[in-house]
Amino acid sequence: MKVDTKQRLAALRARMKDTGTSLVAIAPGSHMDWLLGFHPHPDERPCLLLVAPEKETFLMPVLNAEGSRESTDISFFTWADADGPQAALEAALDEIGARSVEKVVLDETMRADFALLLLDAIPGARHSFTADTVGALRMRKDAAEFAKLKMNAAIADRAMQKAFGSIRPGMTEQDLAAVVKDHFASEGAVPSFWIVGAAGNGAFPHHQTSDRKLQEGDAVVIDIGARTEGFPSDITRMAVVGRPPEGYGQIHTIVEKAVQAALKAARPGVLAKEVDAAARKVIADAGYGEYFVHRTGHGMGIDGHEPPYITATSETVLEDGMVFSIEPGIYLPGRFGIRLEEIVILREDGPEILSSLPRDLHVAQA
Amino acid sequence: MKVDTKQRLAALRARMKDTGTSLVAIAPGSHMDWLLGFHPHPDERPCLLLVAPEKETFLMPVLNAEGSRESTDISFFTWADADGPQAALEAALDEIGARSVEKVVLDETMRADFALLLLDAIPGARHSFTADTVGALRMRKDAAEFAKLKMNAAIADRAMQKAFGSIRPGMTEQDLAAVVKDHFASEGAVPSFWIVGAAGNGAFPHHQTSDRKLQEGDAVVIDIGARTEGFPSDITRMAVVGRPPEGYGQIHTIVEKAVQAALKAARPGVLAKEVDAAARKVIADAGYGEYFVHRTGHGMGIDGHEPPYITATSETVLEDGMVFSIEPGIYLPGRFGIRLEEIVILREDGPEILSSLPRDLHVAQA
Repeated sequence: MKVDTKQRLAALRARMKDTGTSLVAIAPGSHMDWLLGFHPHPDERPCLLLVAPEKETFLMPVLNAEGSRESTDISFFTWADADGPQAALEAALDEIGARSVEKVVLDETMRADFALLLLDAIPGARHSFTADTVGALRMRKDAAEFAKLKMNAAIADRAMQKAFGSIRPGMTEQDLAAVVKDHFASEGAVPSFWIVGAAGNGAFPHHQTSDRKLQEGDAVVIDIGARTEGFPSDITRMAVVGRPPEGYGQIHTIVEKAVQAALKAARPGVLAKEVDAAARKVIADAGYGEYFVHRTGHGMGIDGHEPPYITATSETVLEDGMVFSIEPGIYLPGRFGIRLEEIVILREDGPEILSSLPRDLHVAQA
Repeated sequence: MKVDTKQRLAALRARMKDTGTSLVAIAPGSHMDWLLGFHPHPDERPCLLLVAPEKETFLMPVLNAEGSRESTDISFFTWADADGPQAALEAALDEIGARSVEKVVLDETMRADFALLLLDAIPGARHSFTADTVGALRMRKDAAEFAKLKMNAAIADRAMQKAFGSIRPGMTEQDLAAVVKDHFASEGAVPSFWIVGAAGNGAFPHHQTSDRKLQEGDAVVIDIGARTEGFPSDITRMAVVGRPPEGYGQIHTIVEKAVQAALKAARPGVLAKEVDAAARKVIADAGYGEYFVHRTGHGMGIDGHEPPYITATSETVLEDGMVFSIEPGIYLPGRFGIRLEEIVILREDGPEILSSLPRDLHVAQA
């Protein structure tokens, strides 16, 4: 991934200044990808990018130093397996003037042993996570990021259409997932997840796709995503084999109205919780509030799930250029689940939906 | 994966007693797989298995509760996106009598935000990681684990032979890696890593396989692994296209002797560092000590890298039934690298090597 590291480090330092942060520590992962365009091989060896107001450096396992040197000019404090990371970490903190800091921001995804190694080296420092620094910056996507998300969304649309065209009674959930995965692979995308939940299985939002055979009258949740060029996709649509089950149509309509309410509520300047409330109100007013068991959405960028989270309590102010999902659902135990999911770019005048597929129920031949 | 959770929890509690540990916290990942035979979908929502001396429970995102219920009878303290995890965590700790503990053991692989959420809920507790509890138990493999590791090793041997048979001048490192990945997939194994490092690229132990074309005289490090049935493989062998480069044979012999010295040193009752020292002495005595930049090996089980680590400082006492790699190497910048890697089960009378491939240089037609 190619990124403007100089610009992104400058933006981070402006945020650090605004939030009184004297040190930001980032482990190999997506925050580092966003800042540097790469990350060293992540394993059990402590590896941290340490950013102070004036300088930055790396705590680096010597094993990864040569390979990482091809990707960055930032200085390395290397450590060998025989010595352990502690002395190198202390030297690195000395180098950037961060041995005695009041407030450190930790990459929340880093391993617990990395985090506690660092906190032990800067006793007395208060810690928080990246929400107000790297996280806040990552929420605002740029044109290059929009382009990659759109390309991935188009691939996911085609995978979903392939799934629709393949559904037959007697095939298993896993068979249908295999169709999706094969399609992703045929377009060079690596499948990330493939939830296929038929009938009662669809009532578990995170159902593990099983060997249950699809039968006539099964409503099927299809929630799929894949990655290419460093960015993900994520879409959920509903299909049914033959005639929908009793009461299906009414519930689908409620979920669709919840999606529309959230799309209408999502505007720059609105709080994330207001979008959640808009979707939730439709479902609660229809008497199904207790069956909508999750948040309305999540941000999406380098990570499939990232800020802004569209929850009942999020005070995040939505802005032009943020990307997130709108995916209300109703889950009726033992019967079926219905979830409809769009990924949107928030624009000045409202959400731009990345998918071009309608949210209607797809009816497959029984 | 099917495991005897009752037996493993009892073994953990015996270790907790011996080490004065009043709480063990495990996140979705391989430690949980070892204890329970499954783990809930891991994401940014805090999810922890909490084990106290008398009782255990789960802090569980409500979204994952139904799906996880199929896999375990352990009680859940669920939390919804709208509420956050704090109240459920406190109730869970109350339930198992762990609100006020002196010593907590944290899964070192858990996210930093999970760890600090827990530590904030039990102020004053000292923390350590799983080395003396779950980690120590996981080092001793059983017959079912040996069988799965052997099956994976046999697949990796065949993938390596496929690579040997496919090497041609003009193909890229990535082309050769594709042969390996295709072979793994053909046997139902999911490739985990594929380091193909030709000539100077092989001198980076964690080289990222590139589009460099193989040329006559290139020594090629091939370090590959894949997973099936929940267990990994890992093997490194050397190949050359046509005539080996100047000085190759002498270095290969030194690395081979280092492997043999480590195999000879590895006996139950010996310290891990003594095995490292045995390999390192051969290489240092030959004058190449500074070019052996990593530890001699790592344990392997559910994780590709796990204890025991075979390092210069590890005081771990090796025991019958431990599984680890022996993989010394010499890396000559700008010329080539040589690494030879075996995975062994330590038996009463010494190491049993899982691979059946010789460690000789494979010479491919130029």
